[in-house]
Amino acid sequence: MRGKCYATRSDGAEQAGLRIFAAMRKILILGAGRSATSLIRYLIGHADQQEWRLTVADKDPVLASRMVHEGLAVASGVELDAANAEARAALIASHDLIISMLPAFMHMDVLKDCLRLKKHVITPSYVPDALWPMDAAFKQAGLVVLNEMGLDPGIDHMSAMRILDRIEREGGRMEVFESYCGGLVAPESDDNPWGYKFSWNPRNVVLAGQGGAAKYIRDGVVKYIPYHRLFRDTVRIEVPDLGRFDGYANRDSLKYRKAYRLDDIPTLLRGTLRKEGFCAAWDAFVQLGCTDDGYAMQLGTDATWTDYMNAFVPGPAGHDLRKRTAAVLGMEAHSRVMDMLAWLGMFGDAAIGADGLSPAATLQRLLEAKWRLGPDDKDLVVMWHRFRYGIEGQHQELHASLAVIGQDQQHTAMARTVGLPIAMACKLVLNGKLKDRGVMLPLSPAIYDPVLDELAHLGISFREDLIGA
Amino acid sequence: MRGKCYATRSDGAEQAGLRIFAAMRKILILGAGRSATSLIRYLIGHADQQEWRLTVADKDPVLASRMVHEGLAVASGVELDAANAEARAALIASHDLIISMLPAFMHMDVLKDCLRLKKHVITPSYVPDALWPMDAAFKQAGLVVLNEMGLDPGIDHMSAMRILDRIEREGGRMEVFESYCGGLVAPESDDNPWGYKFSWNPRNVVLAGQGGAAKYIRDGVVKYIPYHRLFRDTVRIEVPDLGRFDGYANRDSLKYRKAYRLDDIPTLLRGTLRKEGFCAAWDAFVQLGCTDDGYAMQLGTDATWTDYMNAFVPGPAGHDLRKRTAAVLGMEAHSRVMDMLAWLGMFGDAAIGADGLSPAATLQRLLEAKWRLGPDDKDLVVMWHRFRYGIEGQHQELHASLAVIGQDQQHTAMARTVGLPIAMACKLVLNGKLKDRGVMLPLSPAIYDPVLDELAHLGISFREDLIGA
Repeated sequence: MRGKCYATRSDGAEQAGLRIFAAMRKILILGAGRSATSLIRYLIGHADQQEWRLTVADKDPVLASRMVHEGLAVASGVELDAANAEARAALIASHDLIISMLPAFMHMDVLKDCLRLKKHVITPSYVPDALWPMDAAFKQAGLVVLNEMGLDPGIDHMSAMRILDRIEREGGRMEVFESYCGGLVAPESDDNPWGYKFSWNPRNVVLAGQGGAAKYIRDGVVKYIPYHRLFRDTVRIEVPDLGRFDGYANRDSLKYRKAYRLDDIPTLLRGTLRKEGFCAAWDAFVQLGCTDDGYAMQLGTDATWTDYMNAFVPGPAGHDLRKRTAAVLGMEAHSRVMDMLAWLGMFGDAAIGADGLSPAATLQRLLEAKWRLGPDDKDLVVMWHRFRYGIEGQHQELHASLAVIGQDQQHTAMARTVGLPIAMACKLVLNGKLKDRGVMLPLSPAIYDPVLDELAHLGISFREDLIGA
Repeated sequence: MRGKCYATRSDGAEQAGLRIFAAMRKILILGAGRSATSLIRYLIGHADQQEWRLTVADKDPVLASRMVHEGLAVASGVELDAANAEARAALIASHDLIISMLPAFMHMDVLKDCLRLKKHVITPSYVPDALWPMDAAFKQAGLVVLNEMGLDPGIDHMSAMRILDRIEREGGRMEVFESYCGGLVAPESDDNPWGYKFSWNPRNVVLAGQGGAAKYIRDGVVKYIPYHRLFRDTVRIEVPDLGRFDGYANRDSLKYRKAYRLDDIPTLLRGTLRKEGFCAAWDAFVQLGCTDDGYAMQLGTDATWTDYMNAFVPGPAGHDLRKRTAAVLGMEAHSRVMDMLAWLGMFGDAAIGADGLSPAATLQRLLEAKWRLGPDDKDLVVMWHRFRYGIEGQHQELHASLAVIGQDQQHTAMARTVGLPIAMACKLVLNGKLKDRGVMLPLSPAIYDPVLDELAHLGISFREDLIGA
């Protein structure tokens, strides 16, 4: 049983003899996008020591090859249309552990293959609802399906659970848990008034918060925030050494309430971080309707950004657009928000260069140009947790914060924080360090202790500040 | 060919002989809801003179019978599950003209039956997109499919086109066309601060404006209004003898631009009327997120309206809810809007009596109690058109307004203005007054002249005010 042998390889002396003869453990990485760079570099770097061989599969064969060019002795790139069920299954069949970096909609197909072909899986993706019913089958097959193993979700789970478990051990009773994360631009590369550049999918940034009210709990009351108030009902957060940020609520803060064993906590909020001031300015776009993705605009092929704004701002086109925009937003024409809109060129005569797109997709074109992470720019990942708890008759408050700055355009903070935990989890799974089987999140010490410790060795570590009563 | 005989019955002397022997013309009314009362009363009242026999079919046989109890010599009520294709087709087959008052989702099934069984159709429903491709087949079969023949759509089309055609004949060039309609409460029954009671589907009122940005054109610029700004970007309208109203834009004001031959008009807006002050207060619900129909609230079975509001209003539950609500809305705690919310009991301790509904459905329960049209209440239908046009080097402005007050709970203004045009159109179709065939709206003089004239005889007539330059 090759698969079994690999899974228990380092388990005990009885396996020692096998190590000599056993083939390399073969890891398949599906999807070679921007967030796979640091993952693949780590896997290549540890391949000889760990007796790993890697295959990177992508629909773009050039991209797949480029991803492995520093490790051709241990890794190869192949072309794969992941929608081709036959080709996908054949590739999965010839590997021992599958890392799926594919888009969410392809996720279930891969997971079904892995169950059928009896392969472990690790992925940064959210657990699809349809996966939980397969948990028993994965357990019975002795397989690990480790989900949400990137940054957010991923490092958020691990870092929160490590502290929550510690507080519980110490006898503390949780009163407040708030957790925020943001993919931003490093302070040294922050040269625009929005304090923002794209380090991940621009479309997701433009559409962030859409698709339903945000839900959280405060002082025991379940609260809802409609989309059009999401970037107004923000929280000001001070992160040590990094300054002030705005936090806006994620869609469903209560999603992990049970998994975190916080069923009775009165206040629980998970959110996204932006540089201070960003949310108020983004709210202007939301209020105007510029982030709507539901209809095609009819602007004409020669339209300018002034024409775009005039589609949303009431009043006659000829009159001062900036003044009219400020008026409908209830602001001064020379407020900071209006300056931020002006910096993007919203009141200018530059041509849009596209027609027939939704308001959101039209805006995205502009933002991709204005918020581009330049060749010398570095990105920033910030995570911030707030724990408030009662212990020995007193209230304690603990803040834990993580700040990671990208190394370069390839090994961004985003790519490192998404990819490295996955890579480290490969060691746990393939070396038999993980006893649990089935569908799981990285919530147990068996995962979070070794991964957080190894991340800390690479400089990705949380700072803790005890605030006191 | 019986059908053909009916369709040309009054066409000429050569038909005279047939009239003696011909069977009665049989009209089938599908759906006996609130808006069918005046339609059925008119048809019964004209049955002998017009040689009509009526069948009223509804899934509720008691309702169907009650609808015809004043005309048992000429009309009968039958039970029909309109979703039962066989029963529906059998009933349609034995009639000459079908009036469909069924919900929109059943509309296409009825229309396909009518084509196959070669029956004329009249309906107040919007033309489904799937109907236009069947136009040629209806034409070839010599059938009339007269849609949007109620109030709005219906009387709006007829009254607008009559005036637009007249302006065109006089050589005028349209610059502005605005058209608003509202189903409201009569001044003598208007005893609540919202100036509103339900005269039609409460769910549609609560969800009004959702499902996409409103689109209109002003001064040649296509404008979009997101839902969360719809009840803020309103227009103040003064209707002669009735006072001031707020108008908010309908989903797609440009829908009839071509049909009205207004392709080049710089300003075109269609909207909905509410009593002055309603929209600002309704906007409070929109801003808070109370009209969201997308998720189930978890309020608990004992929850009060204060608990409902606390789910949307930031801040600790114990503190003054009214003050906090005013603060998040950017209002004074004792503004008119806050008084209107208080009148509904939003800050009170009355039990909701329902849990697990969406915010919108929860709110609807309260409004159905508070905005109920009482047994002695009368409703009001208001329509208001604004025409601005250039003629002989001058600008003219013409306002046309309609105000209809309901007779009683059965024959509401809504039921009369929806049903009577349909009933009158039956005469046109069955007496061969309509030469056109195929899928149509009531946009031609052959329809609007006789129907508007007959409506005027019943006291449903527009007042015109020439405003001048």
